[in-house]
Amino acid sequence: MALRLGAIVDALGGELQGNADLEIARLAPLHNASPDSLSFLSNPKLAKELASSLAGCVIVSPAMREQAAARGAFIVTPDPYLYFARLTQLWKRAHARQEAHPRIHPSAVVDPEAIVDPTARIGPLCVVERGARIGADTVLKSSVTVSEDCQVGARCLLHPGVVIGADGFGLAPDKGTWVKIEQLGAVRIGDDVEIGANTCIDRGALEDTVIEDGVKLDNLIQVGHNVRIGKHTAMAGCSAVAGSAVIGPHCTVGGAGMVLGHLTLAEGVHISAASLVTRSILKPGQYTGVFPIDDNAAWEKNAATLRQLHSLRDRIKALEKK
Amino acid sequence: MALRLGAIVDALGGELQGNADLEIARLAPLHNASPDSLSFLSNPKLAKELASSLAGCVIVSPAMREQAAARGAFIVTPDPYLYFARLTQLWKRAHARQEAHPRIHPSAVVDPEAIVDPTARIGPLCVVERGARIGADTVLKSSVTVSEDCQVGARCLLHPGVVIGADGFGLAPDKGTWVKIEQLGAVRIGDDVEIGANTCIDRGALEDTVIEDGVKLDNLIQVGHNVRIGKHTAMAGCSAVAGSAVIGPHCTVGGAGMVLGHLTLAEGVHISAASLVTRSILKPGQYTGVFPIDDNAAWEKNAATLRQLHSLRDRIKALEKK
Amino acid sequence: MALRLGAIVDALGGELQGNADLEIARLAPLHNASPDSLSFLSNPKLAKELASSLAGCVIVSPAMREQAAARGAFIVTPDPYLYFARLTQLWKRAHARQEAHPRIHPSAVVDPEAIVDPTARIGPLCVVERGARIGADTVLKSSVTVSEDCQVGARCLLHPGVVIGADGFGLAPDKGTWVKIEQLGAVRIGDDVEIGANTCIDRGALEDTVIEDGVKLDNLIQVGHNVRIGKHTAMAGCSAVAGSAVIGPHCTVGGAGMVLGHLTLAEGVHISAASLVTRSILKPGQYTGVFPIDDNAAWEKNAATLRQLHSLRDRIKALEKK
Repeated sequence: MALRLGAIVDALGGELQGNADLEIARLAPLHNASPDSLSFLSNPKLAKELASSLAGCVIVSPAMREQAAARGAFIVTPDPYLYFARLTQLWKRAHARQEAHPRIHPSAVVDPEAIVDPTARIGPLCVVERGARIGADTVLKSSVTVSEDCQVGARCLLHPGVVIGADGFGLAPDKGTWVKIEQLGAVRIGDDVEIGANTCIDRGALEDTVIEDGVKLDNLIQVGHNVRIGKHTAMAGCSAVAGSAVIGPHCTVGGAGMVLGHLTLAEGVHISAASLVTRSILKPGQYTGVFPIDDNAAWEKNAATLRQLHSLRDRIKALEKK
Repeated sequence: MALRLGAIVDALGGELQGNADLEIARLAPLHNASPDSLSFLSNPKLAKELASSLAGCVIVSPAMREQAAARGAFIVTPDPYLYFARLTQLWKRAHARQEAHPRIHPSAVVDPEAIVDPTARIGPLCVVERGARIGADTVLKSSVTVSEDCQVGARCLLHPGVVIGADGFGLAPDKGTWVKIEQLGAVRIGDDVEIGANTCIDRGALEDTVIEDGVKLDNLIQVGHNVRIGKHTAMAGCSAVAGSAVIGPHCTVGGAGMVLGHLTLAEGVHISAASLVTRSILKPGQYTGVFPIDDNAAWEKNAATLRQLHSLRDRIKALEKK
Repeated sequence: MALRLGAIVDALGGELQGNADLEIARLAPLHNASPDSLSFLSNPKLAKELASSLAGCVIVSPAMREQAAARGAFIVTPDPYLYFARLTQLWKRAHARQEAHPRIHPSAVVDPEAIVDPTARIGPLCVVERGARIGADTVLKSSVTVSEDCQVGARCLLHPGVVIGADGFGLAPDKGTWVKIEQLGAVRIGDDVEIGANTCIDRGALEDTVIEDGVKLDNLIQVGHNVRIGKHTAMAGCSAVAGSAVIGPHCTVGGAGMVLGHLTLAEGVHISAASLVTRSILKPGQYTGVFPIDDNAAWEKNAATLRQLHSLRDRIKALEKK
């Protein structure tokens, strides 16, 4: 189903220069667009792709107005990437097919003592346990588990395989064996939270694990018990937060980034991919800890030397004294 | 439902100083306790929280007896953390609601040729394949898979999404393509093993993958084929053990720690979070390999220099010769 | 059920020296073989195990002919490991029990508008959404999700918990909150692809995420949106590829190895375990970036010094000037 350019601008704003009656059949990246495609330029590094793109229309920032005009129709908006995000939502709504199955899929196992908002959708083979609450317009895709007494707010989206409220990893040592600490808390998830496939958020030991409004979690993430993740923080795939850590609002954690237990990250802290946070970070900024990749032979030499680094420092000191 | 302090001490021992008739309505951390809460102090660093806590009673070690007495009721026990663990178990039993569904949930898919102990519980949407065995008092939460011929011992707890017995990753190269090595072994899991959400334990190639008694695995852990994990070893979330590695008893692996294939860890080896084990470790102790996190600008400088570390060493040598 | 040695050689080739009527009851590693076992020697380092093995017959390369003859029956083949792989397949076929349930398990949720090849098998509690396509002889084990419009080719094997086609992690920032970029692409998986338990492959934002023929993915792997993985590339457990990365054919990624977004790996690039790829790699070879593990005390000293490495370099420079 195609959308008229005019209808798009009517819905999303922006200044259209070009034929409002052009029918857009596809949204496409610049390098792979056809004359019936709408494309966008948000990264100035890709400006060279603009001239050669076959897109019927492009979304650009005011700074790119002249370059866009040189090639054809365009929409000007202060933030093309944000405009594109809204456009994908418009596009999805326009192309949505009617749901064939009821709001709670018959294969889902929803406890009679769970409270599911009448506007929520529970997909196939989900489990919603006793005392759990699912908020308005929230969607659980397939095979999602929401355990006993856990809460999910409104307008959340939980992807397949998500596990909310498994036991936190609590053990007390006792003469060489482990005694389980029963996890008596639950998980509370705010509104507008998205949680990626197979991500796990453990229930708290005594108090609740808390995911605040607007948090976005990618796939295969581990969130330990008693963690708090602040509003609008985003974490990429395979990242992890160990028990009782507190992550402030508006933070980001790169893929496979990890925060150890009981630490605090202040608002606006950004952890690079594959970096391990071993101490609290109270000053906003970007933080990194990664051994730089190299060809294996070079790495072997440097890694071997690294194991003597402290003594190398002593040798430098000794040289300096002479 | 509240528990009398006297009933708690009757069940768990310890020396109570205070009113045995006090009704405990909550277990709570010191900083967030109310007069009807029972709290505990196991970490001496938190001793300052003791004086200001509103808890109705606190569990302390003999060394803290005086400080505890200065503020109100207390229970003295040699290991407050272990006491607290047992207390959570008592609490959970006292508050357990009756299970609404039968021992094997009707939505579970249990092969007629699987052997499930009559006291085991198989949760919603689990799969127990042909020839699998599930031991006494073992609990499979929801959406757990136990594949063909795999065994789970007694008193185990498998959290949602656990996959026992998927094929190990066995491939033989053949002129640029891969030929699958069928995985003919299975998985054998001992007694008192806990396995966290979405953790995977692969079946062996020829022999079985073995998880010994009392092992505790957190969420999103990968255990490759033919691995053996020794008794009472504990592994934190996102850790991994590659094929044919042998991990001794009483080891720990921190979050995202990883052990390469065919290696051996002796009894009592402890691997720090995010560290990669690249050689066998036969001496007990704590082992670490992590690039320390820093603000990004400092990291960039040091990482760039690291790639020249071997030549820096040579320059130091040259200086020393002069 | 035993297989005659003669029948094995008839099926798989190789030169048998020994009694073709010997009944083989087990395939076993050299160190654990019995007189009714068939074993193999592919790693020359294990040659010392050959003499002492009790195996009834061993598969060896021509170079090992004499040593094998000294102990008993053997099969000579140019590539014993490949022969062993084919043998496991023969073994599995010979021992296959008849499937008790129909081709599409009654507990699976397959949309009427999905297209499932009549020879494909859909296991218990799988979800195949509208518009999805499952190719000939492909097997979905239990609890696999294939989302809307995603395609899986022929002869693929998807292990339990695999999620194909969850939304990619696409977000545009807007005044401190995140606006979702709807993921309008899908996932296209070629033929002969194997995907390990709980691995996730996200759908593309505008175009499709593509997994080419013969790719082998282990467990708990994350593949981001718009990624392309080239033919016969293999990735080990817990590895990850961030959005829009392009990995060439015949690459390997070790366990927990990670490729950042928008990068390119050329054909024949091999990434070591736990290494983070931060730039495109266009030259074939092995690449590594791992902090070497050490006992914790030594690590602490070296890690602390590492944070001053750049200034150490300056001190060396200063010494050289003198």
